[in-house]
Amino acid sequence: MNSLEQLSLFIEEHCSAYRFKTEPSNLYDPLRYFMTLGGKRMRPILTIMGADLFDVKKEESIHAALAIEFFHNFSLIHDDIMDVAPLRRGKETVHEKWNTNIAILSGDALLVEAYQNLAKYPDERLPILLKRFNETALEVCEGQQMDMDFETKKTVSEQEYLEMIRLKTSVLLGCAFEFGAILGKQDEQTRARLYHFGVSLGIAFQIQDDILDLYADPEKFGKQVGGDILSNKKTLLLISALDTKDDRVNELLEMEPTVFKIETAKTLLKELGCLDKVTKVKEYYHAEALKELDALSKMEFNVKPLKDLSEFLLVREH
Amino acid sequence: MNSLEQLSLFIEEHCSAYRFKTEPSNLYDPLRYFMTLGGKRMRPILTIMGADLFDVKKEESIHAALAIEFFHNFSLIHDDIMDVAPLRRGKETVHEKWNTNIAILSGDALLVEAYQNLAKYPDERLPILLKRFNETALEVCEGQQMDMDFETKKTVSEQEYLEMIRLKTSVLLGCAFEFGAILGKQDEQTRARLYHFGVSLGIAFQIQDDILDLYADPEKFGKQVGGDILSNKKTLLLISALDTKDDRVNELLEMEPTVFKIETAKTLLKELGCLDKVTKVKEYYHAEALKELDALSKMEFNVKPLKDLSEFLLVREH
Repeated sequence: MNSLEQLSLFIEEHCSAYRFKTEPSNLYDPLRYFMTLGGKRMRPILTIMGADLFDVKKEESIHAALAIEFFHNFSLIHDDIMDVAPLRRGKETVHEKWNTNIAILSGDALLVEAYQNLAKYPDERLPILLKRFNETALEVCEGQQMDMDFETKKTVSEQEYLEMIRLKTSVLLGCAFEFGAILGKQDEQTRARLYHFGVSLGIAFQIQDDILDLYADPEKFGKQVGGDILSNKKTLLLISALDTKDDRVNELLEMEPTVFKIETAKTLLKELGCLDKVTKVKEYYHAEALKELDALSKMEFNVKPLKDLSEFLLVREH
Repeated sequence: MNSLEQLSLFIEEHCSAYRFKTEPSNLYDPLRYFMTLGGKRMRPILTIMGADLFDVKKEESIHAALAIEFFHNFSLIHDDIMDVAPLRRGKETVHEKWNTNIAILSGDALLVEAYQNLAKYPDERLPILLKRFNETALEVCEGQQMDMDFETKKTVSEQEYLEMIRLKTSVLLGCAFEFGAILGKQDEQTRARLYHFGVSLGIAFQIQDDILDLYADPEKFGKQVGGDILSNKKTLLLISALDTKDDRVNELLEMEPTVFKIETAKTLLKELGCLDKVTKVKEYYHAEALKELDALSKMEFNVKPLKDLSEFLLVREH
């Protein structure tokens, strides 16, 4: 198997070289723009690594990998509209650079392009690829809707939050990895192992993202630290803090959105044991992911690259 | 074959009884709402009639018919956002009844549901259904983008306009009808006949819609007469009027949007020969559609119901 860097480069090349049509330019230029903004390309890497377990070459699995990556980017374009986000990966979002209507429509087109990549397997694997892709895509929409609903909900439980991130971000990682098994024509049990690895990895990754949003070293973190707490976003950290019923948490919510609020939150949530508690939840899901890899390892599959990937993703400050 | 009314009822029942998931309700309620707003259900009827030519029962072709109808409704939900339209079929649009974010996301989900219906043919027909669906879906996006681009373009040629409506509305009718041939496992030539029938029918229908928007009897027409000319929309009628370079056309464009402007347009465009000219273009595409039916008829297929459908659609005042 190739190194993570090699795989990332391989996917990057395919994203850049992808032949979108050209006219009308207001439809296709935004796709070309957005698909070359970069990102970790974590999801397509999972598909290619998953397929590699069953000796499917990356030149064959790339289309399924691109279907996943295109879907992910479609959802980002539309999420950015809904979140009124000006920037994505440090560059203008599509609705900022063009306009909202163009962002809606080019997002739609990118979703269709994802399905076009799936259509590149016109054999007995297509029905199952399509079915799992559809189920996952709907779940991602459900997760996004839950996330929007949370904004106006007074209280969100830890369980509701975990279900939201499972749907919004983790099932796509599960699907990405399961695609590897489908391409490798594996049975349902093996497919489920890969799926659950991806889902658990995804949940752990998202929780870590919540932690890093408050506790990351600003010099190493890719985005502004403290954004979530400044907007009182109900992440697992804040939910856990609210659960303590400590008065200082309500006072924190009332504070003006300044650097002082971020510093207060860092100290308070550590003191209340929230950082510890949430870190343990992350570790639980990390361990769940590794359990699936152990089971695959016992089936004599070489899971080393996947273990490395999960370490890379979950022991990071970036 | 069943009558048009029976088919319409059959599709209506399937739209109403379709089992969308229920939670989160802000995602799925809008789908249930929109899918029961009615409409002519012209596209799914084409699929069922097309499949019937090859003895595919409507209970089998209904899923492909629903894929087409769901896609059409997805595009309407998103188009309504882009057009800031308050009403659709006399009822509130999704973004009006809920909000824009919900309309974006539930539209996305409806597009995925369309693909779920396609996935109900997990046999050798799936690759070709999926491929044609994807190609058509992209073209519909292209047509919508062209239509938006026209709003800021100074001049639009007749040819550009015809290409726009071919993409925005007609290829989906072509695809709907071609699906019948794919379900009936027909060869490429037969598929192409059905496709071109649908495309020509669609272009003729859209041109008629432009004519009716200005010249319909308000009591028989489903929507407000004159909407296009009040907003100076570049329909084939107005494009044809601009081509005459008659000064009165520019004066018409400058007029306040009142009933008097509508009456002036009706008289002027008739006097300039635009109504005649555009009616001839419609008749040309109607004839093109009938040519394809003649060819199918020579292949001993019973095209009577399709001839009746095109008469019903193209000789109407509703």
